[in-house]
Amino acid sequence: MMSHDPNCLFCKIVDRRIPSKLVYSDDKVIAFEDINPQAPTHILVVPNKHIPDIQSMNEEDRGLIGHLFFVARNLAETRGLEKGGYRLVINNGRDAGQAVFHIHLHLLSGRAFAWPPG
Amino acid sequence: MMSHDPNCLFCKIVDRRIPSKLVYSDDKVIAFEDINPQAPTHILVVPNKHIPDIQSMNEEDRGLIGHLFFVARNLAETRGLEKGGYRLVINNGRDAGQAVFHIHLHLLSGRAFAWPPG
Repeated sequence: MMSHDPNCLFCKIVDRRIPSKLVYSDDKVIAFEDINPQAPTHILVVPNKHIPDIQSMNEEDRGLIGHLFFVARNLAETRGLEKGGYRLVINNGRDAGQAVFHIHLHLLSGRAFAWPPG
Repeated sequence: MMSHDPNCLFCKIVDRRIPSKLVYSDDKVIAFEDINPQAPTHILVVPNKHIPDIQSMNEEDRGLIGHLFFVARNLAETRGLEKGGYRLVINNGRDAGQAVFHIHLHLLSGRAFAWPPG
């Protein structure tokens, strides 16, 4: 396994040491249902690699971010979420409400979303 | 110029046919201030290429999505937004409130953001 912060909740989920409602995994990312869903569909797409926040990303992670998005897009397609639509969100840092310091992309769908986004 | 939908607002901004408060541009993307800001910093990062929504992206656009994020990240770094934090949002489709059908990444910062994100 690629994750390497023994105290990180999402590393533990990546390593299957903590269970989750997994909906997708490959060699770079996993996706699972948010434990506190804010919409009928609320999935987190998480890199296996422990990257605490966006400013910790290297140039080599550029493709990984693209992959997070394509995984979210493919999940949306598979689940028929494209017709209604969906919102993608990354919280980075304290003011944004980042709850786990391991980058994750929120895929929210199944209801109308208000503006501003929080 | 790469944009090619003559009726698209963001293509017109990319082509400089409509003015904007531009904060960044390169050969692939532009970034400008949202005309209806929802936070002290509210910037849109927009590909030059006219891609209406996420499901219209090709595999070849994977790097472009990564680039949108790195541009947002670099703008956040330059403007000192990392300490407080920031929220990144993509609205895709009707329910998400996508207002312009040309993909764009919202960079919001400068205040605390509530949960859920809209």
